[in-house]
Amino acid sequence: MQPSIIGLDADDTLWHNETVFRFTHDRFNELLSDFADPATLDAELAACEKRNLDTYGYGAKGFTLSMLETALNVSKRKIPAETLNEILMAGREMMRHPVDPLPGVEDALETLAGRGRLVLVTKGDLFHQESKLAASGLGSFFSGVEIVSEKNVETYQRVFARYGTSPDAAIMAGNSVRSDVLPVLEAGGFAALVPYPLVWEHEAADAPENHPRFRELSCLGDLPGWLDELRPH
Amino acid sequence: MQPSIIGLDADDTLWHNETVFRFTHDRFNELLSDFADPATLDAELAACEKRNLDTYGYGAKGFTLSMLETALNVSKRKIPAETLNEILMAGREMMRHPVDPLPGVEDALETLAGRGRLVLVTKGDLFHQESKLAASGLGSFFSGVEIVSEKNVETYQRVFARYGTSPDAAIMAGNSVRSDVLPVLEAGGFAALVPYPLVWEHEAADAPENHPRFRELSCLGDLPGWLDELRPH
Repeated sequence: MQPSIIGLDADDTLWHNETVFRFTHDRFNELLSDFADPATLDAELAACEKRNLDTYGYGAKGFTLSMLETALNVSKRKIPAETLNEILMAGREMMRHPVDPLPGVEDALETLAGRGRLVLVTKGDLFHQESKLAASGLGSFFSGVEIVSEKNVETYQRVFARYGTSPDAAIMAGNSVRSDVLPVLEAGGFAALVPYPLVWEHEAADAPENHPRFRELSCLGDLPGWLDELRPH
Repeated sequence: MQPSIIGLDADDTLWHNETVFRFTHDRFNELLSDFADPATLDAELAACEKRNLDTYGYGAKGFTLSMLETALNVSKRKIPAETLNEILMAGREMMRHPVDPLPGVEDALETLAGRGRLVLVTKGDLFHQESKLAASGLGSFFSGVEIVSEKNVETYQRVFARYGTSPDAAIMAGNSVRSDVLPVLEAGGFAALVPYPLVWEHEAADAPENHPRFRELSCLGDLPGWLDELRPH
């Protein structure tokens, strides 16, 4: 297989994201400690995010709005305005957090850019994701950026079509089995899972076993090696 | 001129948006009336939105976060949590507001779809804009949807290139001189202004005078007529 396009997930594949979310989440738990214990807060916030997904979609702004809503609910509207302000500011800091590429990512992208056209395929806030790509300094490696509201089979079919690529010449690499692997395989493409130590609950799913177009890699730097193996001899 | 692509703005071109924002804004002023008069609130909220544009971008979620921040600031953190909850809910209602096409828009799109490929080109929250397009029932008229973080010359050049169209075969219609007209003309395309009674302060700009590739129309239904005039005889 000679890839025509190499799709890459962004958050937790190219740079830390879940770590920043968890850090903000911990700060949230600390600010709400007078009203509920961490386990309750985790559960309430997760339920609130899920409930709001249809309205807010993915991303840091929706997460901030859900933190505020959870704080108001859990405290039965008794939370001081000052604390709500702290939550609002914590959300904003999260959005302004510096974006550092994960170790080895820059070298990996440089190698991969010689093998096929790189396309960033990511969910989340359009504005925030574009800002992060710019801040990461990795933008120049990419031939295209596709910020999508959901990563399902139709999304990948549309992306492949847009770049004039048949699925068997497309490969996607990312940290989520649910978003970066299963729908790509279903669309007929190749998929590499590059796990990140933390997985957002919503994204959890089992990796496929013995699928000929799937491989779990320990880091993005191993992707060129897998591409070599896939090449017809 | 025979258009290859016909770009269309979404908010306040295909459906009401500014009206919904103003309605929410009025509700905000009412909720904050114990702390400041409407003129002060308008000014404070506009300044807050502008300050946050680099972090939040355009759209309803960022607007809601800016309303909350302004409420906290103007009240010097004295605002009751219950009122902040009302603001949060007002923002959410805005995002869930039904999306009704403006009068004549559906017929206009049907005619235009026979003249060139229709492409929606809009700023704002990716998720919210896609939801609105789905809710409007107008999605099937469009060959493409481009949700962008900013509408400048580069944006339009990128969109034209993506659809393999030279600028002189591209036309854009929308309600903002700043976003839908000036950068399109600069990129070499044609532009039609279809004014909406309300203009967001941030978008205000003077329309070009006597530009051969520009026309101000009273409604979208007049666009096919202008295309006829532009056609070589």
